Amino acid sequence: MALRATGRTSLVDAVVEQLRAQLTAGEWRVGDRVPTEHALAEQLQVGRNTVREAIRVLVHAGMLQSRQGEGTFVVSTADPAAVVRDLRRAGIRDVLELRIALEAEGARLAALRHEPADLARMRSALAAQAACEETGDGPDSDSHELHAEHDVEFHTAVVDAAHNSALSATYAWFSGSVREALVAALGDRDMPRILPAGHHALVDAIESGDPAAAEAAARALLDVPMRAVDALLARDVPTARAQP
Amino acid sequence: MALRATGRTSLVDAVVEQLRAQLTAGEWRVGDRVPTEHALAEQLQVGRNTVREAIRVLVHAGMLQSRQGEGTFVVSTADPAAVVRDLRRAGIRDVLELRIALEAEGARLAALRHEPADLARMRSALAAQAACEETGDGPDSDSHELHAEHDVEFHTAVVDAAHNSALSATYAWFSGSVREALVAALGDRDMPRILPAGHHALVDAIESGDPAAAEAAARALLDVPMRAVDALLARDVPTARAQP
Repeated sequence: MALRATGRTSLVDAVVEQLRAQLTAGEWRVGDRVPTEHALAEQLQVGRNTVREAIRVLVHAGMLQSRQGEGTFVVSTADPAAVVRDLRRAGIRDVLELRIALEAEGARLAALRHEPADLARMRSALAAQAACEETGDGPDSDSHELHAEHDVEFHTAVVDAAHNSALSATYAWFSGSVREALVAALGDRDMPRILPAGHHALVDAIESGDPAAAEAAARALLDVPMRAVDALLARDVPTARAQP
Repeated sequence: MALRATGRTSLVDAVVEQLRAQLTAGEWRVGDRVPTEHALAEQLQVGRNTVREAIRVLVHAGMLQSRQGEGTFVVSTADPAAVVRDLRRAGIRDVLELRIALEAEGARLAALRHEPADLARMRSALAAQAACEETGDGPDSDSHELHAEHDVEFHTAVVDAAHNSALSATYAWFSGSVREALVAALGDRDMPRILPAGHHALVDAIESGDPAAAEAAARALLDVPMRAVDALLARDVPTARAQP
């Protein structure tokens, strides 16, 4: 099979896409050694430098791993960049629901496993947010951004209090890559402020050690933006399929 | 600042790491245009081809985007490959808890939104799994693998029945990249078979339209491997910190 493209740059991209497709289709399994640069170059009828560049892209994407003197091996057949693309295409409502899934379970586990430092971190984020409100700088974008940063810090502290590295890693990635899109999508629309009482109720529920109460408090907190999004969607897209 | 490395290959990697660090540190924000190839090459004291290759890596990683004639822009400051690495380092118990977070919420929403085709898909996966049991091929690795595939298909059908594209994308990525690691980690250890009754109870709960019952059934199903992992950890690592 010969890959064609105009110019060398897009030829590397074409080889990347070809190899990525073979990986996600399961043609090679995790742990398999992929063919040598030489064999791939012959098979795809491109130069070895082009193959080398394409492999580097997939190594950095976390799909392949090169081991000195041994060759290149498959470490994952899932494409991490694809899920980011899919999340960007997902609607705001879908993204909020995913956030609820991660935060409700985080709060539940936090009730069982929090340490004093976790509660202190949550309360300190809330205090910083309150101080930020009191200065009353008005709704300029800098103070909004600072307020949002304290909010991210609070919710991250809740999830981290679950003491689960897989949950924390996924939440950090999620809040880093998707929150930006969320903020951009909402932009200058009027989103309701969440009252501090809801945040403090969540900390208290976690401190009480009751997983069901903590989960309920986390859901109640996120129910505010969810209802605001529903209202926006109902206003903007009157023909949208109603959510039961 | 001059980046040093032995050979051209590792120089590209060094530039990738440098740019990635600047992105995750928030030096450039989403939407920002990064400096031109020429400027970056001068700044890092490397060749333009090296910069071009490094940028390509970050474009494929979903962090940068090149727009013809306009330059290269930041689309995400989160590194999707990093979370995959972190998840691989996370313990089995942590990974199972993350799976519970996604599946419990999936089941809950599926109870509210499932369509007849969703239930048919779940039941068809269970029937295929049952047929696979009946042929009784014994515990060879091929039949194990087929059994696991039907299991993934069942759980994916549950999550997809939530009709949430963000949740489905995250679950698909998660089950693709992490399940492999999980299976490899458990390997030849004795994991308890989950009885078919638990799976059917989940489908029935979703069909009944009761989100709390569906969530409880999803949690009950995953409680079996969770208890098995706890038992393995207690046996293998007697000094491990007890989970409350």
